[in-house]
Amino acid sequence: MRGVVMHGRGDVRVEDREVPRIVEPTDAVIKVEAACICGSDLWPYRGVDELAVPRAMGHEYVGTVVEVGGEVTGVEPGDFVVGSFCLSDNTCEICRSGFQSRCINGGFIGDTQAQYTRVPLADGTLVVVPGGKPEDEDVIASLLTASDVLGTGWFGAVAAGASPGRTIAVVGDGAVGLCAVLAAKALGAERVIAFSRHEDRAALAREFGADAIVAERGEEGAARIKELTGGYGAHGVVEAVGTQESMLQAIASCRPGGHVGYVGVAHGVSLPGDVLFRAEVSMLGGPAPVRRFLPDLIERILEGRINPGRVFTQRLPLEEAPEGYRAMDERRAIKVLLRP
Amino acid sequence: MRGVVMHGRGDVRVEDREVPRIVEPTDAVIKVEAACICGSDLWPYRGVDELAVPRAMGHEYVGTVVEVGGEVTGVEPGDFVVGSFCLSDNTCEICRSGFQSRCINGGFIGDTQAQYTRVPLADGTLVVVPGGKPEDEDVIASLLTASDVLGTGWFGAVAAGASPGRTIAVVGDGAVGLCAVLAAKALGAERVIAFSRHEDRAALAREFGADAIVAERGEEGAARIKELTGGYGAHGVVEAVGTQESMLQAIASCRPGGHVGYVGVAHGVSLPGDVLFRAEVSMLGGPAPVRRFLPDLIERILEGRINPGRVFTQRLPLEEAPEGYRAMDERRAIKVLLRP
Repeated sequence: MRGVVMHGRGDVRVEDREVPRIVEPTDAVIKVEAACICGSDLWPYRGVDELAVPRAMGHEYVGTVVEVGGEVTGVEPGDFVVGSFCLSDNTCEICRSGFQSRCINGGFIGDTQAQYTRVPLADGTLVVVPGGKPEDEDVIASLLTASDVLGTGWFGAVAAGASPGRTIAVVGDGAVGLCAVLAAKALGAERVIAFSRHEDRAALAREFGADAIVAERGEEGAARIKELTGGYGAHGVVEAVGTQESMLQAIASCRPGGHVGYVGVAHGVSLPGDVLFRAEVSMLGGPAPVRRFLPDLIERILEGRINPGRVFTQRLPLEEAPEGYRAMDERRAIKVLLRP
Repeated sequence: MRGVVMHGRGDVRVEDREVPRIVEPTDAVIKVEAACICGSDLWPYRGVDELAVPRAMGHEYVGTVVEVGGEVTGVEPGDFVVGSFCLSDNTCEICRSGFQSRCINGGFIGDTQAQYTRVPLADGTLVVVPGGKPEDEDVIASLLTASDVLGTGWFGAVAAGASPGRTIAVVGDGAVGLCAVLAAKALGAERVIAFSRHEDRAALAREFGADAIVAERGEEGAARIKELTGGYGAHGVVEAVGTQESMLQAIASCRPGGHVGYVGVAHGVSLPGDVLFRAEVSMLGGPAPVRRFLPDLIERILEGRINPGRVFTQRLPLEEAPEGYRAMDERRAIKVLLRP
């Protein structure tokens, strides 16, 4: 089969690889129907994360089950499934409390930009899409987002306390931030404010429900949020970048007693204790427990209530993955879908 | 009148000072019936916080109202009152959301180790004790704790999610940590684990409801908590010290999806973003919104359901405040009550 492998900074190749087989009795193997490139894939692409050895890429996927291990009971060959990028047994105490991203037996999937992929802990990781594989490619694209980018934005919005009556600000206008805008609105937030200074992204933020766009950043950005919220700050802020600047901007934009949900993978972040102590905001973040939200997200997508697949501004055959990486790196594309 | 003034490292004096008068129409002046020395008073005493000018000390107090400003309607001369160390109007949006410690018009009281003190924003800061001044000195001592040390431990326990079925760990065996043990138990926690390696403090922790004492610290301490909780970590952890080590110990002791309530005033803390991201715990802390809890705490104390005044292992006349500071600095006393 063909699959994407990163060899080093800026060096992504599509190569021949072994078709994965069942290894553990809790595995499933799926034929990947759609995959995509994540903002976090750009960290190694840009050399921020160094690779010691070549890495098979991809952790977002929808697909059709082709084979299951002897202990798998929840999915069967032929099922069209969405799975979280985090593997989970969905039965341990941590999973049952809704944090499948930290399953005590879990881990991460890591090679879905390929024609086939092996999904460990299939019963606790995969969710069957009712009605089978949708005919509409846009619905498949939206289901694909549930695997990570939407699920992550959704977690950020939940952690930020998005709900009726609340004003939610979103730091970061990448695909996760845009999905957080969609999520905050879908969760009933009264007002959603997106930080953006790129017209294409701001336009999609508005389409996803943003009521206001703020171009200022840092302290100026936070001051603008306070102006827009009677001097108090937002009730909740989603941080979807992962840098020191974006974290401090998120904290400063939030009112005391409010909530910051941070889902940008932290790079070089070090939070001063006195800033946290004075801010007095609830902070929750980390890898999103997408599995918690999947059934709800699938239902919302199939009913057409949300259309998160709009984040894919480019769709390419798997063979053209290197161009997809370039397009995202150069910010020509918000997010790139790959068709294996 | 007489009052405590800190002149520099290790230099605390009781001096003649002006009796405070009403300045703003929202002020009250109270005769301080009992005050005390806070662990945070030791930061300047030890020279960790440098003083540019001498500082009138004290922020915990119970007392009798002697005078009120023209706009005060909630308290009147003769009332026996407990007040928060944080001043609050108790009407702004932040106060109404339960974060009176960050009142948009608020601040901190700062000179209660004295015979009289002025309380700004009296209506929103003071709570009248039903039935007037208690005859029992131990009840007065317990009411005094509600002003900060108990209220702060209580906030830590609430932020840590203390409730039935939960295991709560407490980092720090100072008076705040001990009050957090009491609070976690009073809030219904199934199991409370206190970190301590001092027998007198461990004994009081047990009296306050601790089910287990862990002497290990740092990573070893966190590992011990995991051993005691089926490998998962505590559901919630209260951090009541304020150092880098104690914060990291608290985070490491908490299960993913759990809650860390940090109430130790942060000194030299810098939290690595990747540690927070991987831990995936909710973090909330800062100055305690004591006012939120005061009516409930007063009721519990008057009913004899909690006896937090036990943290005062030494009671001294105000004139002997310097000895009180020494006793706390040398850890001969857990907490010192001062009688003006």
